[in-house]
Amino acid sequence: MDAQADADPAEVPADPLEVLHERRSSKWQTHPADVLPLTVAEMDFALAPPVARVLSRALERSDTGYATGAGLREALAGFAHRRWGWEIDPGSVTAVPDVGMGVVEALRALTSPGDSIVINTPVYPPFFGWIPEVGARVVESPLVVDGSGWHLDLAGLEEVFAQRPAVYLLCNPHNPVGRAHSPAELAEVVRLADRFGVTVVSDEIHGPLALAGSRFTPMLTVPGAAAVTISALSASKAFNLAGLKCAMVVTASPAMAAVVDRFAVYARSRTGHLGVLATLAALHEGEGWLDRLLITLSARREQLGSLLAERLGMIHWHPPEATYLAWLDCRRIGEGTVPYERFLDRGRVALEPGPHFGSAGSGYVRLNFATGADLLAEAIDRMARAL
Amino acid sequence: MDAQADADPAEVPADPLEVLHERRSSKWQTHPADVLPLTVAEMDFALAPPVARVLSRALERSDTGYATGAGLREALAGFAHRRWGWEIDPGSVTAVPDVGMGVVEALRALTSPGDSIVINTPVYPPFFGWIPEVGARVVESPLVVDGSGWHLDLAGLEEVFAQRPAVYLLCNPHNPVGRAHSPAELAEVVRLADRFGVTVVSDEIHGPLALAGSRFTPMLTVPGAAAVTISALSASKAFNLAGLKCAMVVTASPAMAAVVDRFAVYARSRTGHLGVLATLAALHEGEGWLDRLLITLSARREQLGSLLAERLGMIHWHPPEATYLAWLDCRRIGEGTVPYERFLDRGRVALEPGPHFGSAGSGYVRLNFATGADLLAEAIDRMARAL
Repeated sequence: MDAQADADPAEVPADPLEVLHERRSSKWQTHPADVLPLTVAEMDFALAPPVARVLSRALERSDTGYATGAGLREALAGFAHRRWGWEIDPGSVTAVPDVGMGVVEALRALTSPGDSIVINTPVYPPFFGWIPEVGARVVESPLVVDGSGWHLDLAGLEEVFAQRPAVYLLCNPHNPVGRAHSPAELAEVVRLADRFGVTVVSDEIHGPLALAGSRFTPMLTVPGAAAVTISALSASKAFNLAGLKCAMVVTASPAMAAVVDRFAVYARSRTGHLGVLATLAALHEGEGWLDRLLITLSARREQLGSLLAERLGMIHWHPPEATYLAWLDCRRIGEGTVPYERFLDRGRVALEPGPHFGSAGSGYVRLNFATGADLLAEAIDRMARAL
Repeated sequence: MDAQADADPAEVPADPLEVLHERRSSKWQTHPADVLPLTVAEMDFALAPPVARVLSRALERSDTGYATGAGLREALAGFAHRRWGWEIDPGSVTAVPDVGMGVVEALRALTSPGDSIVINTPVYPPFFGWIPEVGARVVESPLVVDGSGWHLDLAGLEEVFAQRPAVYLLCNPHNPVGRAHSPAELAEVVRLADRFGVTVVSDEIHGPLALAGSRFTPMLTVPGAAAVTISALSASKAFNLAGLKCAMVVTASPAMAAVVDRFAVYARSRTGHLGVLATLAALHEGEGWLDRLLITLSARREQLGSLLAERLGMIHWHPPEATYLAWLDCRRIGEGTVPYERFLDRGRVALEPGPHFGSAGSGYVRLNFATGADLLAEAIDRMARAL
């Protein structure tokens, strides 16, 4: 193996630390400069060249007015076909500013105040905010973990669905555990949703990030899902565009399209113009770069596994199948946010505290490994020395 | 006068038509290339240099992750103090993705389904959408027009307020008529709001665009307004940043701050990162450019007046005190959207159809004069020849 693994031409380049420190986004501004942040889901890589080019050209022509969203639906349909064999009717795609706002609009259209919405904890913290935002109530159906890793508890889901919740808010692939739910699991979800009259809202923001050895199954490719599912996707995670505000909602049946028709009239016009341009470039011209990103992230996942085994044997984990997020069981260090605080205070490494993902996250941390090999090694070294 | 008035160094430069045609924003993509668009509120000028610089630098460091909003509140407070003598407590400023979403969050926090919200028609078309978005009902209190121009009908407002609406959604300065409401008028609004228990939500997106001879009065500088007013502002109109998604909501009393505290938890994190960076540059370093913009727009307003008098004598107007929008009374050409269609079909000039601003807009069009002197002259020539 080359001494400069980080310069492997098959990998995408990470920006150097001095450039990262100049970034003004959340990941690099939340903590003091001596803290290494492996927190919020931003990536430390340079932008995909087609994305960087289209944004530079937009600035040259002062092209910063209102978004039209033109071409997005066809771009997503082409990308989904090529990547996943998923046939999307472009007419069923609706632009929204981000996946969160697409989900909130869907929840608002699907529920009345007081209705129940099921989520699988531990889960992406905003899920706990989006549900009360529409006046609904969170019902937890925890994931289960066994020797093979984290997965849906289908028997538990059936029990919860029997209480007739309005919506099941699925995280596919799942953040923070990185599970790419299987076609068989998703088929059972469809069967249960259909049987109990539950609508599935599927947050598929990490769909493009299935790592080596795994596949992402778009919910709407599962037989029967079209009648009961609204999916939300974005190029934002795979291409690091969270701050540019562009995502899409997809349906595949008249019943679900009718739900989207009830979205706020101006939901579409709230999309970011540069987000639309960047997303078009990513979906049309970004696949070569994305393939290299997935090689990079898969390599970083392996590196993390080796480093944890060598230096932090008391931490248990199941390597994620998708996402660039590692869900680390640090309960031998402490419960609640104790591990988070230990790594931050003594190691100057910032992670996401497990309890933010629900009470099932006590004693866990989430680590973002979308960074250079050197920074990941430095972070693990600091974490090991912090104990 | 110089033959190249458009190159007056006191003015900001408009991009040439071939560059404008390459823009992919709404204004330049909605119509075929042979149509000259003077439609949606985007400007045809090059970006303010400090804004262009900060955006270029962000792209160089792939800085496209989540916004923090850090520094926005202090930047707005400084700008408001210098521009308008308005003292804002930075702690009372909340970032939102755009003025519309700030207004919608405020309306949602202030109303229950079925409540009434008062607007002054003709008015910015999304007002008619934001109100049903929160389940409330539109109550119109039309503006009045006399020899001195368009203004609030304070007696009419009192009658409507006596019906105890929940909210008065004020447009200050007013789009499309360009009225910069006077301190005396706004003081009367405060008196009525206080008397009848109505909360004022003041859309001040055009505040920075008071033209030569006029002043913008921020609602929260009016004595007594703090107790009953929530204001929403943005750099987006004055600096052409609509597609970047950044605006701010301001309060000045505990009661109104408590309303903003009820905004959705994630409303802040929906703000665009490049929008925040551009807004910081605009508010901190953009005033010199803004002064030149106002000289430019004031010159364009004069030019429009001369051209209308020369070539389109059947159109009546009151030059706007603020905004770069002209509200043209074309009723001698026809009612409804007839003038709009005439200018589009025969003249290949696109304007905003008056009826989009409410039934009071029948026979009117709104013309956006934030463009170069040559394009404005060309548009008026085409409009004159269309008749």
